[in-house]
Amino acid sequence: MIKDSNSSATMRHAQQSTIPLGAYLFNRVQQLGIRSVFGVPGDYNLALLDFIEPSGLDWVGNCNELNAAYAADGYARIHGLSVVITTFGVGELSAINGIAGAYAERAPVIHIVGTPSRSLQSSRALVHHTFIDGEYKRFAAMYAHVTAAQVNLTDAETAPDQIDWVIAQAMIHQRPVYLQIPEDMANVAVAATNLGLGPITGPSLGTLPINPEHVATILDRMYSAKQPVILVDGESRNIGALAEMDQLIRATGWLTWTSAFGKGLVDEELPNVHGVYLADYGDDSCATYFKTADLVLFFGPHLSNINTHIFTAIPDETVTIAFSPNQVQIDGHVLRDTSPRRILAEIVKLVDMPRLAQVTGPRVVPLPDPNPVASDMLCQALFYPFMNRMFRRGDIILTETGTAAEGGKVFKLPSGCRFFTAVTWLSIGYMLPAALGVTLAQRDSASHQQGHNREPHRTFLFIGDGSFQMTAQEMSTMIKKNLNVVIIIINNNGYTIERVIHGRNASYNNISQWNHRHALGLFGLSDDDAAHRYFAARTWGELRTALDSQPMQRENAGVTVIEAFMGQEDCTGELKKLLLEQVSKEDKTSL
Amino acid sequence: MIKDSNSSATMRHAQQSTIPLGAYLFNRVQQLGIRSVFGVPGDYNLALLDFIEPSGLDWVGNCNELNAAYAADGYARIHGLSVVITTFGVGELSAINGIAGAYAERAPVIHIVGTPSRSLQSSRALVHHTFIDGEYKRFAAMYAHVTAAQVNLTDAETAPDQIDWVIAQAMIHQRPVYLQIPEDMANVAVAATNLGLGPITGPSLGTLPINPEHVATILDRMYSAKQPVILVDGESRNIGALAEMDQLIRATGWLTWTSAFGKGLVDEELPNVHGVYLADYGDDSCATYFKTADLVLFFGPHLSNINTHIFTAIPDETVTIAFSPNQVQIDGHVLRDTSPRRILAEIVKLVDMPRLAQVTGPRVVPLPDPNPVASDMLCQALFYPFMNRMFRRGDIILTETGTAAEGGKVFKLPSGCRFFTAVTWLSIGYMLPAALGVTLAQRDSASHQQGHNREPHRTFLFIGDGSFQMTAQEMSTMIKKNLNVVIIIINNNGYTIERVIHGRNASYNNISQWNHRHALGLFGLSDDDAAHRYFAARTWGELRTALDSQPMQRENAGVTVIEAFMGQEDCTGELKKLLLEQVSKEDKTSL
Repeated sequence: MIKDSNSSATMRHAQQSTIPLGAYLFNRVQQLGIRSVFGVPGDYNLALLDFIEPSGLDWVGNCNELNAAYAADGYARIHGLSVVITTFGVGELSAINGIAGAYAERAPVIHIVGTPSRSLQSSRALVHHTFIDGEYKRFAAMYAHVTAAQVNLTDAETAPDQIDWVIAQAMIHQRPVYLQIPEDMANVAVAATNLGLGPITGPSLGTLPINPEHVATILDRMYSAKQPVILVDGESRNIGALAEMDQLIRATGWLTWTSAFGKGLVDEELPNVHGVYLADYGDDSCATYFKTADLVLFFGPHLSNINTHIFTAIPDETVTIAFSPNQVQIDGHVLRDTSPRRILAEIVKLVDMPRLAQVTGPRVVPLPDPNPVASDMLCQALFYPFMNRMFRRGDIILTETGTAAEGGKVFKLPSGCRFFTAVTWLSIGYMLPAALGVTLAQRDSASHQQGHNREPHRTFLFIGDGSFQMTAQEMSTMIKKNLNVVIIIINNNGYTIERVIHGRNASYNNISQWNHRHALGLFGLSDDDAAHRYFAARTWGELRTALDSQPMQRENAGVTVIEAFMGQEDCTGELKKLLLEQVSKEDKTSL
Repeated sequence: MIKDSNSSATMRHAQQSTIPLGAYLFNRVQQLGIRSVFGVPGDYNLALLDFIEPSGLDWVGNCNELNAAYAADGYARIHGLSVVITTFGVGELSAINGIAGAYAERAPVIHIVGTPSRSLQSSRALVHHTFIDGEYKRFAAMYAHVTAAQVNLTDAETAPDQIDWVIAQAMIHQRPVYLQIPEDMANVAVAATNLGLGPITGPSLGTLPINPEHVATILDRMYSAKQPVILVDGESRNIGALAEMDQLIRATGWLTWTSAFGKGLVDEELPNVHGVYLADYGDDSCATYFKTADLVLFFGPHLSNINTHIFTAIPDETVTIAFSPNQVQIDGHVLRDTSPRRILAEIVKLVDMPRLAQVTGPRVVPLPDPNPVASDMLCQALFYPFMNRMFRRGDIILTETGTAAEGGKVFKLPSGCRFFTAVTWLSIGYMLPAALGVTLAQRDSASHQQGHNREPHRTFLFIGDGSFQMTAQEMSTMIKKNLNVVIIIINNNGYTIERVIHGRNASYNNISQWNHRHALGLFGLSDDDAAHRYFAARTWGELRTALDSQPMQRENAGVTVIEAFMGQEDCTGELKKLLLEQVSKEDKTSL
């Protein structure tokens, strides 16, 4: 290529300073408020890792790449963006299921992959972490299925803009993106100009024109509604208008439900906020009220079978106004190329409150406060209401796929709590590293905002013994980082979630027997600490002892394990229904 | 489609019995000598799992899918074929890095994926384990990059032949294959005919015509050679002619070396068998002899950078006859469409021994038998020779990527030992589940062949503390299956393999601190057993105590852990060279 010393690029270069690419990248990341970076070192990414700490970021260092991806997913759901770094081939493929989950449930993770140097790639060298056939493009091709955008940096001139672009894509699409950096690019000098232009915003989501008629239509529908309801689903998180949604829920007083995915995105202490909407309550007054509503304001629809209770909890399209991250749907008619966020903001600004219906409907039923006999064995039906008393404002609660996800739907969360449960990807084992990610994000945010009282919140993870085995080692990262996490292992002797679906007594639904009391010790606590922070509970009395213990007090930082033993077939809600169907089939077969 | 009652298919059906597809599949698997099936249950594969035990197979039940794939890879390297079963999306993507490794290093694994029912797929239902966009083909597209053949069973008529075909592809290509089975296919009736035709052989690898001239050429080259050598590489395993290779090595007496990948495929007790060939011995007589050879019989070339010591151990093409699974290369000229296995058999049959050169060359140097002072600290240089005395005929030895892989190259294996180390994929964490797989394969084979003395062999796994964290939980499956495995954890305080490459003192090469003495307890042993089967060794005296202990005796079944503490930068061979280069660079920088 002929170099023209008068080209604008050259002139621009002449006027500006340069910076190593690795420094540019992590400064960009730092500008976006990210403080913790997840991942595992590998020879193709080591040169890049040199730039993390000098950029003011903390390298978390996970036990393996799948766990790192899961943790980054969790971080993104709290902070809005996250970074995970792996090495070429082996590292990125170990992480790919975690990135796929972030794609499915919309967590914007920037996945950075350190790849072999440009000279190795262009000479098709038969290096490790390849199939020794000279082909270096396979893994990127695989990643194109699970990321919203892909970039391979091979050119110092364009690298800064490419980095900015791919990060912006994560923000725009609210899904993971994929960034390959050859080993020899980490130290090349690139223009530092963009760093001075402020943090990456991407094309702002708020600049698209909105049509005042759309706003007027929606307001009219709101004014004319006699029995309006609000349904909050999980993609509300991706719209970027949680504050506006909150204002509407407070100001209208309209009865509000959430999906499992939407739980934790609204203030459940409000008198008009019910919990998770379950269409098959049968004769329940809530379901009747919801089904006969003449307007449903539906925020962030996410219509997977699990999140909609096998499609039964989807509101009637003809009375629904649905706000998605990039479209609004009114009574089945889709409005594209507009800004749902701005429309929502306009509605909040313009709505004339006195013209809205004063609704009366089923009152929010307080969560029962069970007081079981101390010597009685634990059971799923009472366990979640019982545990609910531990939650305080600002805590984070996670329920892993399985009996915990079903049981935790009844939680009544204090204000400011966040809640996470799997609704579509349902990769068991996800929730433990995710707990690491959300807790770090919350701590990063707290230490960023205020110096005092840096450890006020706790994370509660409810996880079955089968799921726990998938990713248990990531506890050691929680311990290393001295995070406030209470891990409640529901020991029900195997994959109860699978038993209720099929093979109730099949041996393939058994798992290896673990002695969970040794987990804290193996994963890094001293023997003394480990003994004081592990509690086995078979009865309500034992559970109470655990909850009243010193390590469970708010001020006591660190990881605590409560092993709650429950019946192999003990479950609630949908799961119980499935189990009974199976038993009934067996009875018929045996007749 | 119009049904023709006179079609041959219909007539065939009329004459034969049927069998549920799941039963057909696992009977086919059983016919191939496989006894253990790896995997994790998930709702889309449960109906299929019902057929495993009735088919005479043992369901292993792994902790997670990546571990299951790694274990299946190990099983295939011993048995020649293996099966891993996962569920759609989440399960298969967790496993994909393991399957990629099997592809890279040629282990024929049949990966069976339970997928959503045909009706869900054809209606593009928004079910869990998808991206709720109705697209069900993504994961198969991803798997096409890492498997030799892919089949999706959607039709009962063709299913048996498709199953046979895809299994044959694994055997032909010696790489993993991918088999999708929709949930509702597991119980459909399919023709049982093929089951009566004997086990699947695929198109036999021995039927291709061989050209007598090729055999004559090779024999001539052998007769005229004055300084011939033999080099055994890892893809010898895939040729299917290990016996013929062994005969040649014994009969010729020619000096023989292996690559790291080929180690364990030849009998190292033979007087003419040296160990791993290292071209950069410098003035060593072996390297000189090898480099001046006028003929190299090269079995199973696998030319990755790591396996060839950065391409230095590749023999001169112009004097080399190389046997690969599907081609022979003579002095750079490739012969395709022939049977390397049969050519080799012909050579063994026809070779006229008296016409071969009686070689003299460097004698095989016995491994030193170190006797270090009991109070001295352990060191890498003496550790592997010291441990070598534990190996007995028929044991399996595995060295994980890192200092163990480098150190273990010096092992001198007793006859009948198998040896595994990573040479191309190098995914750390692989080796622990692989140890599970190879041990099960050996036990299955032993119990198949002879009733008496069923537990004569042991597996020795050498693994660093960083790699151990990746997949540690799979120890619990070893314990569940009561396997004879000695896990030697080399605790050198983090990723020494990365430190020697880059970032010698960088914090990103640190790992979380674990207390390994709790591993056996967490993963299933009683406290008493765990205490008796764990040994910490900082000194040679402590190591000796561990090796002399009762659990380390041959007859004592079960998992034992020896934690060997070594210096953070203690390493040998290539790694030491890399480390010294780095130190030298630092010295220059600091001047």
